Amino acid sequence: MKLSARARDIQESPIRKLAAVAQKTKSRGVGVYHLNIGQPDIPTPEAFYDNIRDSFERVLSYGPSDGIAELKEAMISYFRNYGISLSKENIVITTGGSEAISFAFNAIADPGDEIIVPEPFYTNYNGFATLAGVQIIPVTTQPENGYHLANISEIESKITPRTRGILINSPNNPTGTVFTESEIQQLAELAKRRNLFLLADEVYKEFTYDGETHYSLLQLKEMEDRVIVMDSISKRYSSCGARVGAVLCRNLDVMQGVMKFAQARLCPPTLEQIGAIGAYRLPMTYFDDIILEYQKRRDLLYDILIASGEILLQKPKGAFYVMARLPVTDSDHFARWLLEEFQIDNETVMVSPGAGFYSTPGAGKQEVRIAYVLDTTKLSKACGILVEALRAYNR
Amino acid sequence: MKLSARARDIQESPIRKLAAVAQKTKSRGVGVYHLNIGQPDIPTPEAFYDNIRDSFERVLSYGPSDGIAELKEAMISYFRNYGISLSKENIVITTGGSEAISFAFNAIADPGDEIIVPEPFYTNYNGFATLAGVQIIPVTTQPENGYHLANISEIESKITPRTRGILINSPNNPTGTVFTESEIQQLAELAKRRNLFLLADEVYKEFTYDGETHYSLLQLKEMEDRVIVMDSISKRYSSCGARVGAVLCRNLDVMQGVMKFAQARLCPPTLEQIGAIGAYRLPMTYFDDIILEYQKRRDLLYDILIASGEILLQKPKGAFYVMARLPVTDSDHFARWLLEEFQIDNETVMVSPGAGFYSTPGAGKQEVRIAYVLDTTKLSKACGILVEALRAYNR
Repeated sequence: MKLSARARDIQESPIRKLAAVAQKTKSRGVGVYHLNIGQPDIPTPEAFYDNIRDSFERVLSYGPSDGIAELKEAMISYFRNYGISLSKENIVITTGGSEAISFAFNAIADPGDEIIVPEPFYTNYNGFATLAGVQIIPVTTQPENGYHLANISEIESKITPRTRGILINSPNNPTGTVFTESEIQQLAELAKRRNLFLLADEVYKEFTYDGETHYSLLQLKEMEDRVIVMDSISKRYSSCGARVGAVLCRNLDVMQGVMKFAQARLCPPTLEQIGAIGAYRLPMTYFDDIILEYQKRRDLLYDILIASGEILLQKPKGAFYVMARLPVTDSDHFARWLLEEFQIDNETVMVSPGAGFYSTPGAGKQEVRIAYVLDTTKLSKACGILVEALRAYNR
Repeated sequence: MKLSARARDIQESPIRKLAAVAQKTKSRGVGVYHLNIGQPDIPTPEAFYDNIRDSFERVLSYGPSDGIAELKEAMISYFRNYGISLSKENIVITTGGSEAISFAFNAIADPGDEIIVPEPFYTNYNGFATLAGVQIIPVTTQPENGYHLANISEIESKITPRTRGILINSPNNPTGTVFTESEIQQLAELAKRRNLFLLADEVYKEFTYDGETHYSLLQLKEMEDRVIVMDSISKRYSSCGARVGAVLCRNLDVMQGVMKFAQARLCPPTLEQIGAIGAYRLPMTYFDDIILEYQKRRDLLYDILIASGEILLQKPKGAFYVMARLPVTDSDHFARWLLEEFQIDNETVMVSPGAGFYSTPGAGKQEVRIAYVLDTTKLSKACGILVEALRAYNR
């Protein structure tokens, strides 16, 4: 039986594809530090679970396709803390940030249309693009300048008659880069001039360090018609398994399209939406300790890797990832080798090979993505193992 | 800003589009009996909630992309009760039956490909087909013979080089028809001879009456390569808001494609999967009273509508819907009129206009779908109002 082209062509998750190898490593009795996946270890807030516990309905019925109204209200209050004003019709709750990406792509692009994305980028954009038949057109950014947009004209040079939008992700996964207000204003000017949508994945909004703040596309003036933001509670409230996200947009035509997509799949999961209401009602001070904790981890990671003298990385300003260029020619091989052949005191580390975060063939082969979602003791050990492993690998 | 063609073209849910009208009716203080939506009133099993309550983890982490292993095991035991043998690799847990439909369409068809579906059909197939760029090719069935497949050659006549599969839904939404083993064997023979996939939406599996049993595509011999079943707990365990479904298929190439789609969206919602484990572990006797209750409602509904002498309907054998042909020329107008202009003792009823369940233009304009998901007292009142309304409407 012939499968569809998209079933054949859609990439396997480069973050998850080494999972089977790691499983074997563990079954040999070797411990694995997971630097490869963005699964925070921060406890899910009690307020999330409390709200669910108090809300078991006699019948777990379909909810509204665009999400529970109280959740939208709680989100509106949360965004007000950032000076961002939204109304309920600007929000469609989705099943995770994943569905928000899918809805946004489908709302603005048809098969064969193009969306420009600075690379390296969150690898799952590829999957949703393949499913939607949309082409991702990469603009490569460089570790030497912290993966910022070197010049906007390079992006402009990629625009074709099929281009429908530009997508950024800030704070960035996998680089940790936080795009500056000036960069975003330049993108906005370009999007306006060339009549494109401007999309942002802002799920790491909270996680910025050294006093850096995140500039949201939702703060842009006179861009209401073309800005679409994809959001999620997964990282914000350490609830990746909940699958609660949102499309945020002030263009009501876009939202009408998104609403019809939402109706087709009936509704997002109810219990986790109820949990999300509890989480969104937490005061903003909830994030203070968490941000400090991540900043501490980032500093630790950065200091150990830089001290090795062999790894190129910029100190990331946000999210909880860093792309690091290693002195290896094929980081995929290195990542497998770590799991299959290396250990110190019966422990090793798992990293995500960089190539999966690029769509330009051959790019990222020296890089790996490292997530700092372990406590400082574990992270310190894991980084030490990584540095030792590099030396052993290159001998 | 130009939206995508699919955002413009995707249909609004015909089941949900009258919701705003009903809202106005209620705000005038008029009660509305909802015969329009398949939201069961059966309590969600305690076992579902108990399992969740006992499983609040410190961190609500990403689960496996193909679903929690214990849930697959519980499903395998459940299917064994029907003599259906599945292994874990034959199951990918999805976010509701909705996502199962989407994954199945995307796995077998590319934009421009065709899937043949007997109509009337579950209206949301249209939405997923539009999103996937797939054409639904309807084969019209008739109320006069209980919406069964009149002859297989009509289906065969619709096969083109772009046809990738035939999709059935049994027990059927919206007709309540249960396809016979003989019908399904004929479809299987056709699918084999013309090298097509055979898909079934079997989410109403339990709900068959008068001793009728459901014949599953998973029982077919020598069809393992081409059978794909879409499943859900929404109706089975009265948990529509949970969003837990599954793709069931023994073709491991198909499952590899589905698994990659699943990886792109990371995982299905965790808490409801844990609830589903509890539900699936219930003994099969759990369904006995529920089936009797639905059968009682069906009989009541059928008797009242037939006694009116003006409504054409067959006694449905399964699910909890019936398509009824009314003595009206435009059931959409009638459904609105019910909400806007009719009432008895300050109450009216809401039904789903039939045209939304057909993709042939003009078909179904005399029909409405009625769901019997109200208790017998309410259902009796609602049916009485409907019969009176028809008389008033035609005066």
